[in-house]
Amino acid sequence: MTESATRHFELARILDMRPLTIGDGRCAWGMPIKSLHMNPYGVVHGGLLYTLVDYAMGGALTSTLETGQRCTTLEIKMNYLAPAREGDVRAEAWVVSKGGRVAVLQASVAVGETQLAIATGTFYVMTPSGA
Amino acid sequence: MTESATRHFELARILDMRPLTIGDGRCAWGMPIKSLHMNPYGVVHGGLLYTLVDYAMGGALTSTLETGQRCTTLEIKMNYLAPAREGDVRAEAWVVSKGGRVAVLQASVAVGETQLAIATGTFYVMTPSGA
Amino acid sequence: MTESATRHFELARILDMRPLTIGDGRCAWGMPIKSLHMNPYGVVHGGLLYTLVDYAMGGALTSTLETGQRCTTLEIKMNYLAPAREGDVRAEAWVVSKGGRVAVLQASVAVGETQLAIATGTFYVMTPSGA
Amino acid sequence: MTESATRHFELARILDMRPLTIGDGRCAWGMPIKSLHMNPYGVVHGGLLYTLVDYAMGGALTSTLETGQRCTTLEIKMNYLAPAREGDVRAEAWVVSKGGRVAVLQASVAVGETQLAIATGTFYVMTPSGA
Repeated sequence: MTESATRHFELARILDMRPLTIGDGRCAWGMPIKSLHMNPYGVVHGGLLYTLVDYAMGGALTSTLETGQRCTTLEIKMNYLAPAREGDVRAEAWVVSKGGRVAVLQASVAVGETQLAIATGTFYVMTPSGA
Repeated sequence: MTESATRHFELARILDMRPLTIGDGRCAWGMPIKSLHMNPYGVVHGGLLYTLVDYAMGGALTSTLETGQRCTTLEIKMNYLAPAREGDVRAEAWVVSKGGRVAVLQASVAVGETQLAIATGTFYVMTPSGA
Repeated sequence: MTESATRHFELARILDMRPLTIGDGRCAWGMPIKSLHMNPYGVVHGGLLYTLVDYAMGGALTSTLETGQRCTTLEIKMNYLAPAREGDVRAEAWVVSKGGRVAVLQASVAVGETQLAIATGTFYVMTPSGA
Repeated sequence: MTESATRHFELARILDMRPLTIGDGRCAWGMPIKSLHMNPYGVVHGGLLYTLVDYAMGGALTSTLETGQRCTTLEIKMNYLAPAREGDVRAEAWVVSKGGRVAVLQASVAVGETQLAIATGTFYVMTPSGA
């Protein structure tokens, strides 16, 4: 990776988040639960599950883009199903629909067999002018 | 703060997020933009704006609760309006509606006069048995 | 049905919406597309797809409730994937998670093999006092 | 109105929904509550409040478009705050942000002073080729 890319994944490194799988419109990101991930009530902060989903949705969509295209999040909604206190979080996202400029994605977050959250999101695809 | 509370705000400390104001059903959290907050495209990661909103919504609702009650996020949806590269992010949330067990909140995220995102969320209020 | 129930499904009758299947936390509602369902641009109004989803989610959750319990919609978010101009719309919903008072549901809307929309929603379960 | 436009507002006529105000990125639609609007529990069906919001958001955004442009709903999320049994429903929507192709809108639904629902939505703006 370039120095720029390394710096830009600094957030993922600090939060101990990493890509697990990517390809064909699907992507999974993971995070081993640590004490730094806790909210004030002692369960994983919902914002971190959301951040994993945003990374996974971005990866899933990027895997379908052409060279030079990039994408940005228009909106994501997360519904929380259960809290998590330990284990390895896995956020998996997939492209549900993709037009020329707009894509819709879904995601599911789990620790083992326990589903923690579901999400739906809309992304915008940018094509560099001249492409 | 107790040792437990200190540990549970470790995430906020690492991400350089802090409460700015709280009371009467409103709460604001802030974050000075740093390189660690960037996504791979060099703008603040949307998951961090979401995390600020989740903290602010939780604070806004908590400011209306009775002793012993606590709350948990059922869902939040974020719409992104503009990217941010520098400055101080401020996420402000307020209680729109509160029944016995369910509350609806709104939030707005901005850097200075530039609105970055809006959010709506649903929270659940837990009252300890016997209270 | 009682006179009251008949009156309360008057909306479904006027809009030509009807329940297709219900049971075990799943429910489907259908609507044959007619000219009265069109929005100003000549495709089915998104509000009708939403109304079908709301009926289907309510049915799916109700199929899991105990006698005397009822449910109410806290929130639903719909993402539209494709427009529809003709055919039979089918909205299918299922319970993803159900606690004592809160349930999360998903839904998918389609005409034949074409998926038109996806939705996620949160419902509240009311138990009559004394039950 | 042309015969086509008349037909396409047939849904609004059947549901007794009508535009109240439109201009400068804002629009309001109204509906006097009648028995036909009720859900099985005897309150206004949430899908109708949503349909009003969709009409109002579409109107608000359309008021900002150039000749030949039109818009389509990408997603809307509604949070319900209170049920309604009588009175005149008013759904007001406004454009929060508008780029070249994507706009974000908010809406509030009320009967008199009682707020019934809030909504956020994302719309896509289509410009005819050659324009």
